[in-house]
Amino acid sequence: MALHVHKYGGTSVGTADKIQSVAQKLVDEKNKTGNDLVVVVSAMSGETNRMTDLAKQMQTAPSAKQMDVLLSTGEQVTISLLCMALEDLGQSAVSYTGSQVKIITDDSHTKARIEDIHTDKINADLATGNIVVVAGFQGITSEGAITTLGRGGSDTTAVALAAALKADECRIYTDVDGVYTTDPRVEPKARKLNKITFEEMLEMASLGSKILQIRSVEFAGKYNVPLRVLSTFVDGEGTLITYEDEEMEKALISGIAFNRDEAKVTLSGVPDMPGVASAILKPISEANIEIDMIVQNIAEDKTTDFTFTVHRNDYQKTMHILQNICTELGAKKVDGDDKIVKVSIVGVGMRSHAGIASQMFATLADEGINIRMISTSEIKISVVVDEKYLELAVRSLHESFGLSQE
Amino acid sequence: MALHVHKYGGTSVGTADKIQSVAQKLVDEKNKTGNDLVVVVSAMSGETNRMTDLAKQMQTAPSAKQMDVLLSTGEQVTISLLCMALEDLGQSAVSYTGSQVKIITDDSHTKARIEDIHTDKINADLATGNIVVVAGFQGITSEGAITTLGRGGSDTTAVALAAALKADECRIYTDVDGVYTTDPRVEPKARKLNKITFEEMLEMASLGSKILQIRSVEFAGKYNVPLRVLSTFVDGEGTLITYEDEEMEKALISGIAFNRDEAKVTLSGVPDMPGVASAILKPISEANIEIDMIVQNIAEDKTTDFTFTVHRNDYQKTMHILQNICTELGAKKVDGDDKIVKVSIVGVGMRSHAGIASQMFATLADEGINIRMISTSEIKISVVVDEKYLELAVRSLHESFGLSQE
Repeated sequence: MALHVHKYGGTSVGTADKIQSVAQKLVDEKNKTGNDLVVVVSAMSGETNRMTDLAKQMQTAPSAKQMDVLLSTGEQVTISLLCMALEDLGQSAVSYTGSQVKIITDDSHTKARIEDIHTDKINADLATGNIVVVAGFQGITSEGAITTLGRGGSDTTAVALAAALKADECRIYTDVDGVYTTDPRVEPKARKLNKITFEEMLEMASLGSKILQIRSVEFAGKYNVPLRVLSTFVDGEGTLITYEDEEMEKALISGIAFNRDEAKVTLSGVPDMPGVASAILKPISEANIEIDMIVQNIAEDKTTDFTFTVHRNDYQKTMHILQNICTELGAKKVDGDDKIVKVSIVGVGMRSHAGIASQMFATLADEGINIRMISTSEIKISVVVDEKYLELAVRSLHESFGLSQE
Repeated sequence: MALHVHKYGGTSVGTADKIQSVAQKLVDEKNKTGNDLVVVVSAMSGETNRMTDLAKQMQTAPSAKQMDVLLSTGEQVTISLLCMALEDLGQSAVSYTGSQVKIITDDSHTKARIEDIHTDKINADLATGNIVVVAGFQGITSEGAITTLGRGGSDTTAVALAAALKADECRIYTDVDGVYTTDPRVEPKARKLNKITFEEMLEMASLGSKILQIRSVEFAGKYNVPLRVLSTFVDGEGTLITYEDEEMEKALISGIAFNRDEAKVTLSGVPDMPGVASAILKPISEANIEIDMIVQNIAEDKTTDFTFTVHRNDYQKTMHILQNICTELGAKKVDGDDKIVKVSIVGVGMRSHAGIASQMFATLADEGINIRMISTSEIKISVVVDEKYLELAVRSLHESFGLSQE
């Protein structure tokens, strides 16, 4: 007998019927496995938008503190309905809001971080045969203010609860049946992975495979909580996210991620002196613009070229700021391109296998795809290419690294 | 400078626009009077029904405990929206759920009773110039379970908060502009009362003038909280519910109440012996049927007639039980009538004025209205008459006791 934490998102509990299906799944699972079950649920899909619309009618920029009071009601509705559905099936159940569990967070309203979770009451309820249903996405400060964890926060609640309860597995039920080698809409031959490491999943998630919230994967890795992504609607084993094992090391590359939301800007002919990177990036970050890749070319003639990527929405603003910096620093010129994409290969296999980068570059060169920017980390290589090459790049890399094969 | 508790019901906060109007009223009031304001709000009208419908889809008889978790979200939505609207007008505001205030109740889910209210945090917020917005209708047990106070519970929250905070006045804003001498739909000459005593209001409310929840009036009387009923939508002073004063004693009668929801049953020829009343009423109450008026006639030939009224919905069930009792006790027969109404005159003036009852009976006799049953208390006289006489009885009594005059 094990302890599992399940998490069901907004679409999985979006209607009365769906909540009843989830209840049936949980009862079947409990009867079949005898496992103790803790279930984390999100607000019914559509509710958060409905409430946000109401808030916007009240205040142009609704107070973060009151948004938390408002939005946290969404999950509270779901926990009560799910408990009713469970009881209707003869299964005893107990519901908890974040405040009732005591999921203690800091006071960063609308994006709070979990600091502590009390588990005594939940453990007592499990011991007497209950399914415990917990409102995701929400917590409470040590002063008693209601907080929320931000988008995808229910994943974080599930993983944090699993860690605190020392659960054997944390299952994230969603509308996809697992993590794929790449987006099947771009490469129909994409294959579902049975396993992936936390680190790979982090790189895949942050690069645009939006299945799990990054923070929840970090959390799961940090506390070594085996995490499984699987479908609410289709039976299957999903994808297990765990620590590296021997089987995994055999694979060179686990997946191809991509991101269409970036734009690239370059400041050329910058006088090469200490502090220049900071002089360029400080005004950007002060404007609340997030920077992703940064590349600085080798200096020639005592000048250097400085290139980085930002979100496409911030492109015009960034170009404007850079024009001012260009003048201040006496640089040559500012260039930019918002018709680019980032394509990345991700895999822990890279650590122990040489030649991955050259295989990647050769594959792209064979297809006539010009690489505009390169950035690497221990388990990923990212390139920026023209937007029009996205599909071609993803498919050729998917083929080249043997990801389509079973 | 005084401390006032205001309560706005579901129709008063039923839309975004209405919440903004309430915010504007509160800010105007605070600016004009400098009073400290605590505001109790209900769920937006329609929300409770929406949630109850969802619950019924989950469970035929939804668990009371989970209903409380579900329904308490309604007021939580309103407190956040009202705080946003207040902040948008530049007024600092703080929101509290029942659990955050610590409105401690017993664990009778869906009809909990308030046991204690912590006021330290609210007092601190008032001291720094905030308007404090509290979710009505809800509390928390000492073990941390969410509870609700039952229908009209927001009135109770407001009065209990006013008592705990030692407020100078508790104002219940509703969709009527005060308490009338009788229902204006029956007697268009009905007049709004400027003042009424707690006891009179209790008799009026329990007799069918459904403006305030009885429990909140009892509470206000017990803790001597001046209570004012007034309209959210129309300016005016409303009706002040308070303790008896000299002005009030001059009036004989304050109002005419009536109730169309009752039915009358009679068991005749019951052997007159000790314990017979209990033998009749015990099976009725065991069937969860509430009894209102009870009249036992003087015994003749060692038998007695026993008459009482029940809710019209329980009429058939009561008749059925009485048939069995009739056989058991060897009584003569069972009669019943569900085409009756109860009409009552209410007034503290009765205490010091003789002849009120005979004036009432004479008035009805003059109109040819036959009295079927009579019951009296210190400040009210109720009669049961045929249903068809309701309007005639109310209007002739309203005229006879001078209630139409200014």
